[in-house]
Amino acid sequence: MASSSSSILFTDSSPSSAARLLHLRRRHAAVPLHRSVGPLRVGPTHFPTLRRFTLHSSPSHLSPSPILPLASLSTEASAKVIDGKSVAKQIRDEITVEVSRMKETIGVTPGLAVILVGDRKDSATYVRNKKKACDSVGIVSLEANLPEDATEQEVLNYISDFNDDPAVHGILVQLPLPSHLNEQNILNAVRIEKDVDGFHPLNIGRLAMRGREPLFVPCTPKGCIELLHRYSVPIKGKRAVVIGRSNIVGMPAALLLQREDATVSIVHSRTSNPEEITRQADIVISAVGQPNMVRGSWIKPGAVIIDVGINPVEDSSSPRGYRLVGDVCYEEATKVASAVTPVPGGVGPMTIAMLLQNTLISAKRIHNFE
Amino acid sequence: MASSSSSILFTDSSPSSAARLLHLRRRHAAVPLHRSVGPLRVGPTHFPTLRRFTLHSSPSHLSPSPILPLASLSTEASAKVIDGKSVAKQIRDEITVEVSRMKETIGVTPGLAVILVGDRKDSATYVRNKKKACDSVGIVSLEANLPEDATEQEVLNYISDFNDDPAVHGILVQLPLPSHLNEQNILNAVRIEKDVDGFHPLNIGRLAMRGREPLFVPCTPKGCIELLHRYSVPIKGKRAVVIGRSNIVGMPAALLLQREDATVSIVHSRTSNPEEITRQADIVISAVGQPNMVRGSWIKPGAVIIDVGINPVEDSSSPRGYRLVGDVCYEEATKVASAVTPVPGGVGPMTIAMLLQNTLISAKRIHNFE
Repeated sequence: MASSSSSILFTDSSPSSAARLLHLRRRHAAVPLHRSVGPLRVGPTHFPTLRRFTLHSSPSHLSPSPILPLASLSTEASAKVIDGKSVAKQIRDEITVEVSRMKETIGVTPGLAVILVGDRKDSATYVRNKKKACDSVGIVSLEANLPEDATEQEVLNYISDFNDDPAVHGILVQLPLPSHLNEQNILNAVRIEKDVDGFHPLNIGRLAMRGREPLFVPCTPKGCIELLHRYSVPIKGKRAVVIGRSNIVGMPAALLLQREDATVSIVHSRTSNPEEITRQADIVISAVGQPNMVRGSWIKPGAVIIDVGINPVEDSSSPRGYRLVGDVCYEEATKVASAVTPVPGGVGPMTIAMLLQNTLISAKRIHNFE
Repeated sequence: MASSSSSILFTDSSPSSAARLLHLRRRHAAVPLHRSVGPLRVGPTHFPTLRRFTLHSSPSHLSPSPILPLASLSTEASAKVIDGKSVAKQIRDEITVEVSRMKETIGVTPGLAVILVGDRKDSATYVRNKKKACDSVGIVSLEANLPEDATEQEVLNYISDFNDDPAVHGILVQLPLPSHLNEQNILNAVRIEKDVDGFHPLNIGRLAMRGREPLFVPCTPKGCIELLHRYSVPIKGKRAVVIGRSNIVGMPAALLLQREDATVSIVHSRTSNPEEITRQADIVISAVGQPNMVRGSWIKPGAVIIDVGINPVEDSSSPRGYRLVGDVCYEEATKVASAVTPVPGGVGPMTIAMLLQNTLISAKRIHNFE
């Protein structure tokens, strides 16, 4: 397993903050750091060190173990593994039942339309996975594949058709779009009632405001909170740190934690002491795309760690030449935290499950079905 | 000057958190605490202990003094007073010039419409102050005074008229509305291009999102940040704590600080250790409506304190029987902080100045005038 220390890809980094973070990483380099090998990819990956935690039928059995004694900082892995794959499967089973009940009761099948522009391989893989997931729960999927040189008007025409199509309850535009297209114009064209991604500013505004309800919550942060709920992790009154402030994960994750009465701090590339702040947290959600950035020393003993990062690092022992790791140094985290999500198999499978859930919620709302 | 310890009015408090905060206040009760005497009021109030800081013509001269030695924790007040009254006057002078230039160049005078429903004395005072402020800078003010029993449709009709009136560039509905009216329906009816309060969820969503720009920033939090700018307080990379998470101050203040690259934590009624977290902050914005809740012991030496609270407390030595105090214990804060806003005369005057500025911004945008 060849790996070496290397470049930093902090999503909103500057040279100075990157240098600072790199410095922090090196200072605590108990395990080797890894080299990024390119854009994020999805797929099953061998991850032999996982100690699986078996899901019981009742979520009340899933509460994390009490705070670990400091002695546990030393050697043995003791954290629970938050098994996103199992939870996602459970949710998809629940969705399957609801989709079937809806069809039987009112004859309506939820439908998700996906618009893919261009021929990026990774985007094609994501879209294919979404389609397969829809099939598996009985949601109808529609796909519009446009060529790389499609005009903005052509994309808008498809969105307009899907907006008006009563068989479509959710519309998803696969990002990134080719650079000649205006992402904001295109995303804003999706009817807010069908914006299952939850990225419309009106949705985000409602998410931020007390007493307002968003129509949809963005899928990845929703998946993070759902994992905390299914493992009965208390949130109210707890210190939570979100690492990263992207529009699609970090920022909405912070808003969601605050809605649940956590005391939230957001750490980002300009933060001068990310380690110190993170170590205060009972709950950490990391979403920066930095392999192994969060070391054991960043983690408060007994904290619960949700790792959103999916970072490919070189690995000559893998047939593909790389493997996937999170933002959090998993080997170290398991010795300090009370519960950790693995990568892969943690947050990843939850994102698609939440997309299916949002599509079901939309169909139920449009057809006033409870 | 009679005053006594008393009830807690934390804006989103529960009995348990109120008790916790009260406990914290009592533990550090170096100065007497005060009794709230009713709803917030506005007006000139004697505040004899203020040590005024004179504004120089250039904001670059206004940077706060360096971090105080710990010895300063003991006796003498040493913090700069952040003089919101002077800054607000300076901003109003700048607005006067711009309003006049606009009128001379394109013959357009910015207009602000205020809708007041019912006969609450405090609301009537606020509206009168806004009208006077408009007059003083040359902005036209329109007023719609509706009776207490006005129907929602009647209010909506006025909003619709103002939405369509080209002489109106800003519309403000004075809150609170009588309880039979649906605040959300009414506020949502204001055209977003004229929503000078900046409370529309679409505006808040844009404020939260990186790469998006809100049409208007809510006046009070905007005033807080403007004070930091005019006093050249560095924000980027600093730790900031916002106490309170209301839609109109705390939440947007946190979003604004984050847009300026601060590392932000939000403390609220469910936070278990507000003192400890606040003490980590280089910048504190408090907006909870709790007289003297933030004690000297909550403040990191050298921090900058922006106090949004305007709390009336009993004071038999005042002709009116009460005086106004902030959320922050001013006497203690001046011994620890490097700069503090007084109450009154701090954030208060900034709110109306920002309303005038938003109205000017709106008129300029609508008429494409730079």
